Amino acid sequence: MSKIVECIPNFSEGRNKEVIEKIIDTLRGRQGVKLLDYSSDADHNRTVVTFIGEPERVEEAILDMAKQVYENIDMTCHQGGHPRMGALDVVPFVPVSNVTMEECIELAKSVGKKIAENFSIPVYLYEDAASAPERQNLAVVRKGQYEGFFEKIKQKGWSPDYGPSEVNVKGGCVAVGARVPLVAFNVNLGTDNVEIANNIAKIVRHIGGGLRYVKAMGVKLEDRNIAQVSMNLVNYEKTAVYRAYEMVKMEAKRYGVPVIGSEVIGLVPMQALIQCAEYYLQIENFSIDQILEKRIWE
Amino acid sequence: MSKIVECIPNFSEGRNKEVIEKIIDTLRGRQGVKLLDYSSDADHNRTVVTFIGEPERVEEAILDMAKQVYENIDMTCHQGGHPRMGALDVVPFVPVSNVTMEECIELAKSVGKKIAENFSIPVYLYEDAASAPERQNLAVVRKGQYEGFFEKIKQKGWSPDYGPSEVNVKGGCVAVGARVPLVAFNVNLGTDNVEIANNIAKIVRHIGGGLRYVKAMGVKLEDRNIAQVSMNLVNYEKTAVYRAYEMVKMEAKRYGVPVIGSEVIGLVPMQALIQCAEYYLQIENFSIDQILEKRIWE
Repeated sequence: MSKIVECIPNFSEGRNKEVIEKIIDTLRGRQGVKLLDYSSDADHNRTVVTFIGEPERVEEAILDMAKQVYENIDMTCHQGGHPRMGALDVVPFVPVSNVTMEECIELAKSVGKKIAENFSIPVYLYEDAASAPERQNLAVVRKGQYEGFFEKIKQKGWSPDYGPSEVNVKGGCVAVGARVPLVAFNVNLGTDNVEIANNIAKIVRHIGGGLRYVKAMGVKLEDRNIAQVSMNLVNYEKTAVYRAYEMVKMEAKRYGVPVIGSEVIGLVPMQALIQCAEYYLQIENFSIDQILEKRIWE
Repeated sequence: MSKIVECIPNFSEGRNKEVIEKIIDTLRGRQGVKLLDYSSDADHNRTVVTFIGEPERVEEAILDMAKQVYENIDMTCHQGGHPRMGALDVVPFVPVSNVTMEECIELAKSVGKKIAENFSIPVYLYEDAASAPERQNLAVVRKGQYEGFFEKIKQKGWSPDYGPSEVNVKGGCVAVGARVPLVAFNVNLGTDNVEIANNIAKIVRHIGGGLRYVKAMGVKLEDRNIAQVSMNLVNYEKTAVYRAYEMVKMEAKRYGVPVIGSEVIGLVPMQALIQCAEYYLQIENFSIDQILEKRIWE
């Protein structure tokens, strides 16, 4: 059973197809690495990539990809709606199969060191790989963005973990980290009132006194004329999907608003949904090894 | 993506370890075939085997296994608590991955024909491979058992699909078929009254006017002093696990009895539990391709 790590690099180009393909090409047809998905957003001017593979192969692949990113993207003329701190903006490693979080942290450190050395880029470790508690949260690390980092990098407590103590003007800075898989889960409400979705989001999410590993916001789905509580479940093992769902439902009751549906965006670890079936069906002593496909494929 | 079929042969020996191992050995270390599980029951005097592989490799494997079964098991001196019609009692093929039910039916016919030719055994096709509606149900096919088949085989409508028109005295007869995966799912009640479990079972199961693809009976769990509704869900795609669970719960209410838990026995297809998560979380437009592990392993 081979070790498998997932890597979800985000880079700051979402419009120029030629550049995007040149960068993605570094991941195609590689031994020991599989490109699962990539999607570019023109408004955000950003591309999110998902690939998996053995740790050593993933390290080689992301470094080859970084080379193309730094050769082809110039931050001095980058504009886009999504927060970003560099050409290669953020590189998280996620343990998927037969790999521990510790191994992913080591991988993040090794890759971070090499990006700093090879491309003269200031590197910040984040999430489980962070060198200090205040660097765990990506939003806090990235605050100020590319433009602000020329000042921020000189501030006390914000010197990079690796690399030069000045921003690379063309490439910016980069955040490299390790984290558990994230589940993007949205709950649709039977109302067009986005205020209600916002109020529920504030109660359900961690910073509002809600669930520890939930980030949430209210969103209006214009095409369906309904409001939605849009969530990121950043640790489904500790804050299960069904718990977030039930809490949204419970809070919606206050407004007499029903939950009319939900959606899972992108890829989701099997265990995140299996544990919901276990809860609702009250299954005792279930082992993931009872899943037929797991026995076949592993 | 290779084609994968599951085969769950049952043979009539559950006590003599030497014989059991000799038979199982034919499946070990074979190219293109993987032995997932086997378990012998001394009371039933029977062994149930689960293995998977590419259709051609599975066909070769089951024929090699059958050879050992017929050489080592003598039905003239077989006794056991479980119904059985032959040394090799029943051989179902189940589509698992990139294989259609039609291919499993063809496989069942091909294997049935060869068992008949190679070992002079009367073969009855059953379930989706059945040659007539009254031969679909295994319990109906097997009725009378080994001892009764000396008469039954001569009755109108019960000549075998392949092989001689007389029972093989040492090897008996065999049922070979194709079916969808079966889910063994039991619901535990907060009562020690097995009558209640029995009454619920009768209502939930197909023959009692209940769900089309549910077989059920009441069972007493002596060690925990509770009653259980023990079910076989013979087509989870058409009769979902959550529907059987909710129906048991609904009927238990009549007695003021709570459902205190459930259990999944043995292997279960991922989809059978994922569709429960989809139901309870009200997930819209979910695709099994969103499961991370499926993308990794396929």
